[in-house]
Amino acid sequence: MTEKKKTTIVLFSGDYDKAMAAYIIANGAAAYDHEVTIFHTFWGLNALRKEENISVNKGFMEKMFGKLMPRGVDKMGLSKMNFAGFGPKLIKDVMKKHNAIPLPQLIDLAIEQEVKLVACTMTMDLLGLQQAELLDNIEYAGVAAYLADAEDGNVNLFI
Amino acid sequence: MTEKKKTTIVLFSGDYDKAMAAYIIANGAAAYDHEVTIFHTFWGLNALRKEENISVNKGFMEKMFGKLMPRGVDKMGLSKMNFAGFGPKLIKDVMKKHNAIPLPQLIDLAIEQEVKLVACTMTMDLLGLQQAELLDNIEYAGVAAYLADAEDGNVNLFI
Amino acid sequence: MTEKKKTTIVLFSGDYDKAMAAYIIANGAAAYDHEVTIFHTFWGLNALRKEENISVNKGFMEKMFGKLMPRGVDKMGLSKMNFAGFGPKLIKDVMKKHNAIPLPQLIDLAIEQEVKLVACTMTMDLLGLQQAELLDNIEYAGVAAYLADAEDGNVNLFI
Repeated sequence: MTEKKKTTIVLFSGDYDKAMAAYIIANGAAAYDHEVTIFHTFWGLNALRKEENISVNKGFMEKMFGKLMPRGVDKMGLSKMNFAGFGPKLIKDVMKKHNAIPLPQLIDLAIEQEVKLVACTMTMDLLGLQQAELLDNIEYAGVAAYLADAEDGNVNLFI
Repeated sequence: MTEKKKTTIVLFSGDYDKAMAAYIIANGAAAYDHEVTIFHTFWGLNALRKEENISVNKGFMEKMFGKLMPRGVDKMGLSKMNFAGFGPKLIKDVMKKHNAIPLPQLIDLAIEQEVKLVACTMTMDLLGLQQAELLDNIEYAGVAAYLADAEDGNVNLFI
Repeated sequence: MTEKKKTTIVLFSGDYDKAMAAYIIANGAAAYDHEVTIFHTFWGLNALRKEENISVNKGFMEKMFGKLMPRGVDKMGLSKMNFAGFGPKLIKDVMKKHNAIPLPQLIDLAIEQEVKLVACTMTMDLLGLQQAELLDNIEYAGVAAYLADAEDGNVNLFI
């Protein structure tokens, strides 16, 4: 019996284009029969936020962060050529024209392919994000769990 | 017979300094007798653009992207302290003073050392870049080819 | 006798949040009994700068870089939501509230745990940084030493 290869990605970035790269690699690796984990930390947590406004009890600073950060990938900006929010629309139009899969569907596909989506509990705490605000079907863990996955990983990336 | 070690770098970034880091590591690894691949995706594709304006047929959005993105590494900005384009000149002056190898020559050196330079066909399509606009001597591939290289890689980086 | 696992991080970024991520992963890996190296290059070198102004002989451009770059992690900005320098204060307030360890202490902890902190000599030269300006207890090396560590690494990240 041979063990499965492993791909483990830390998604730190909250940029639409970088999240796209992460999910394209993750889906490719899953199709290649790798065991795949995306560990969402810092701004990358925003990729896991539900689009609707979830009412939760928060302190003032946590509320402020919550308001300022994008709710879900569709609200994210680009790392380059963002043009005050016009860039993401441009990219999405081009993607539609070329029949590329948009990011929300890439996330659905990853869930279907059993990519393990993990939210970093330490940075959730820092940014004041609560489980009710994040997608269902995800896991919650800290840096120790990340390392346990990554230390046997074939492809480890920080995006 | 021992197998060669492998270094596989995803160059996602279109920043001069990050591309420099990628090519310095790649050239170092090649000198160390690693099999080295740089997989250029998204803004990293601009590192492979020819400097001259190549006339190709494009749709409107693709033309716009083509105009807005830098043609080749010498036109790229810095990830920090770009100062509206003054930063790259500053860095290049300092590099000249310290006899550091400028980025275009680092790319030439990589080609000489048989570093495999790959352009990601999916994002070329998205950004409307065509083979005629990119350097000769490079390869074209998708995420599956990247993973095939990376899954046996000793050093895998996302830059 | 089993060999220790290895984690090798290139810290390229000069952002407070990215340096935090690097040091959290490094400390986690050291606690897991990995042999850990953080190789500081380009803007990541600023994480190793002493806070006080060290008087050293420099050329004009090197002086300018020295003035413009942050002296130590406490002066660094955020990669997102920096808000003209207000973001880092916000993050530090939230961290205090949640009893998270601030970055300067994360660096102290890394030194205590014998994480090897390396400054890239080539980029020190480029940015005009001298050994007297950087923390004591660190090592100095180039890309060859990085590769020697990374090629046997279990977890290799570029941050």
